[in-house]
Amino acid sequence: MVSTSSTSPIGTRTKQLSVLKFGGTSVKSVPRIQHVAEIAQKRLKDGPLIIVVSAMGDTTDYLLKLAKQCASNPDKRELDSLLSTGEQISITLLSIVLQSMGVRAKSFTASQVGIFTESVFSKARIVDLKTDALQKSLLNTDVLIVAGFQGITPEGDITTLGRGGSDTTAVALAAAMDAEVCDIFTDVDGIYTADPNSIRNARLLKEISYEEVLEMARLGAQVIHPRAVELGRQYGVKLRVRNTFKPDHEGTIIHGGDKVEIYRTVSGVAVDKDQARVAIMDVPDQPGVAGKIARAMADKNIVIDMIMQAVHPSLGLNNVTFTVHETDLDETKKVLQELKVKLNAGEVLADSDIAKVSLIGAGMVGQPGVAAKFFEVLGGANINIKMIGSSEMKLTCVVSKEQASEAARLIHDAFELHKA
Amino acid sequence: MVSTSSTSPIGTRTKQLSVLKFGGTSVKSVPRIQHVAEIAQKRLKDGPLIIVVSAMGDTTDYLLKLAKQCASNPDKRELDSLLSTGEQISITLLSIVLQSMGVRAKSFTASQVGIFTESVFSKARIVDLKTDALQKSLLNTDVLIVAGFQGITPEGDITTLGRGGSDTTAVALAAAMDAEVCDIFTDVDGIYTADPNSIRNARLLKEISYEEVLEMARLGAQVIHPRAVELGRQYGVKLRVRNTFKPDHEGTIIHGGDKVEIYRTVSGVAVDKDQARVAIMDVPDQPGVAGKIARAMADKNIVIDMIMQAVHPSLGLNNVTFTVHETDLDETKKVLQELKVKLNAGEVLADSDIAKVSLIGAGMVGQPGVAAKFFEVLGGANINIKMIGSSEMKLTCVVSKEQASEAARLIHDAFELHKA
Repeated sequence: MVSTSSTSPIGTRTKQLSVLKFGGTSVKSVPRIQHVAEIAQKRLKDGPLIIVVSAMGDTTDYLLKLAKQCASNPDKRELDSLLSTGEQISITLLSIVLQSMGVRAKSFTASQVGIFTESVFSKARIVDLKTDALQKSLLNTDVLIVAGFQGITPEGDITTLGRGGSDTTAVALAAAMDAEVCDIFTDVDGIYTADPNSIRNARLLKEISYEEVLEMARLGAQVIHPRAVELGRQYGVKLRVRNTFKPDHEGTIIHGGDKVEIYRTVSGVAVDKDQARVAIMDVPDQPGVAGKIARAMADKNIVIDMIMQAVHPSLGLNNVTFTVHETDLDETKKVLQELKVKLNAGEVLADSDIAKVSLIGAGMVGQPGVAAKFFEVLGGANINIKMIGSSEMKLTCVVSKEQASEAARLIHDAFELHKA
Repeated sequence: MVSTSSTSPIGTRTKQLSVLKFGGTSVKSVPRIQHVAEIAQKRLKDGPLIIVVSAMGDTTDYLLKLAKQCASNPDKRELDSLLSTGEQISITLLSIVLQSMGVRAKSFTASQVGIFTESVFSKARIVDLKTDALQKSLLNTDVLIVAGFQGITPEGDITTLGRGGSDTTAVALAAAMDAEVCDIFTDVDGIYTADPNSIRNARLLKEISYEEVLEMARLGAQVIHPRAVELGRQYGVKLRVRNTFKPDHEGTIIHGGDKVEIYRTVSGVAVDKDQARVAIMDVPDQPGVAGKIARAMADKNIVIDMIMQAVHPSLGLNNVTFTVHETDLDETKKVLQELKVKLNAGEVLADSDIAKVSLIGAGMVGQPGVAAKFFEVLGGANINIKMIGSSEMKLTCVVSKEQASEAARLIHDAFELHKA
């Protein structure tokens, strides 16, 4: 074929390439896979497609269960190779369905594409993505179906990308292949101003910035994984969150452009109930106490979220308080009990009855009225604030679990987030 | 590491490498995989191992069913990639179990080994087998577990090797890696003088030649696939058929050496009931009639087995009779009906009530007494012989299906095959 443009990486394409990603629930059965194929077929009029799919429904859980029957702590290299079969099954089935509909389709494992990662198992990061095989196939194929979640090391070992891996594969492909857009198909309509299941008048956002959705995702509004959003931000990939079961809906566009709704002061409320709070009291003041605690936690691979340190200068003692994921609470307490002896500290306290309620908005910077209003609303409803944290785009109050939804609803109303 | 021998391909190994192959029933569940791991662990004292495994039990059937739900005639490239996940699951699980027992084990897909095949799907032949990755891993790993049945094309497409594929993978690896022996573990004790399920005093053979087992395998005593035996013969790989559930039994050795029992006149009786016979009558005599028939069958991918042509020189007419696999009978009749018109021939006859009873033995050559005794035994029992065929090592009589087992038993007794 003759290339009409030597500057375009895909010189012979006249229509723009799009990347579509479908998660496990979207391909959990053959009828669901057929539905995905229909979405793809309709989209073909706009140009060729790369489709990234996850493993079918419960396949990954089933394979994990098999591995656990074989050993309580299965080798990670073997586990990654095992789990990668899940996506290999879904890509081939989708390709078979598309071909039976007369669409020129072809499946690719990570190895067949050349999605190279670090030599780290179960949570590898992509370091290089070859586009040759995909570019060549686009000359005679309209839909390239790529296995999400997996990669390959330069030595040929199969890796997996960890949580949010398929989203990351999709965005990385969109960046490398210079796609017009990367659509993340999921089972919700897009990104809302708050969780629509608990806040009735939550409003679907048409557009939002990478930064805001990053703050939201970490707080539980997990329609798209933060790693993927971060990658999209880095390479300026236009992302779109859409509903697999309402393929004609527009969904929410995530980008860094001018028309984003970040110019409103606040854009959403998020609730995260899977948190616990711990504190180590009366730590004798010495340089690097917080560092020692953080290192001890990191050694156990436990992520510390909100952290604060209160010093009593006259006593020379610190109280260090932080939040962790609820499932890490027992391990955290154990680590702190050991540390307590080393640091000659006082009591270790733990509280699992907490939830984080956060207000997100890139326009909050330098607007002290926002925080004041937040605290007043909670105070007026007799909701006790256990802890406060803030970043440039986020204000978080820790409250008891049972009051969290009520707090979110009140905040959503007070800031009139239901209005466009 | 320092190599002590520059001539050996595996210079640092002091103990000989063995290849062990386990089929789908041997790894159909986690407890079965654990059993295989125990066999491997015991064998390690004799040297390092390469283990070839098939997919777990019904996995391949399950995947095929999924594909058929997606399309009545699934694309073969996609189907091969789909089916190859079955072996990838079993190799990783076996590796996980071995590692949990403290054994240094590592799994390899065909792509990770470099088992290159033709670019033909569903029945590819191996054209090149790279040993670098395996050799390197043997420096710090004791058990290398390789996925059977699969290969990869130079373009990176995944292929499968068709029926008997895992046996073929095992023998090819044994040849390429210069293994001492290739053990084919199955669910029978080895190769018998006849089918032990129907002939009570059938005797387990200690040794047999490649050529004899080739004749037997094609006749239904399918404990090892003919392709694998042929490959073993070609490269002089010592093969051993053994029982997974009696790992201490010796089994049957297949080789081309001096001590093989081929020096006995006959070594076994085999029965094949899955046959049908067709005939096209009164074909006007002209050059190449048999060739035209064979070509027409080959075009439909139907294998002709026994073929005979009876000519009536005075009439200038031929009757051509041959056997085919029973499942090909309908298609065969259709082909012959079309051919009948073209060749201006007479009737097409079909008979599905046939079975082949064969006597196998490399020592039969030039011993007319063997055939005579065979025919006499059947005649004495009033068993009608419908057709006779012979090769250097095999004598076959076609009889009715219901008389086949009785015929085999009588032949087995008459030639005293139960005696060593």
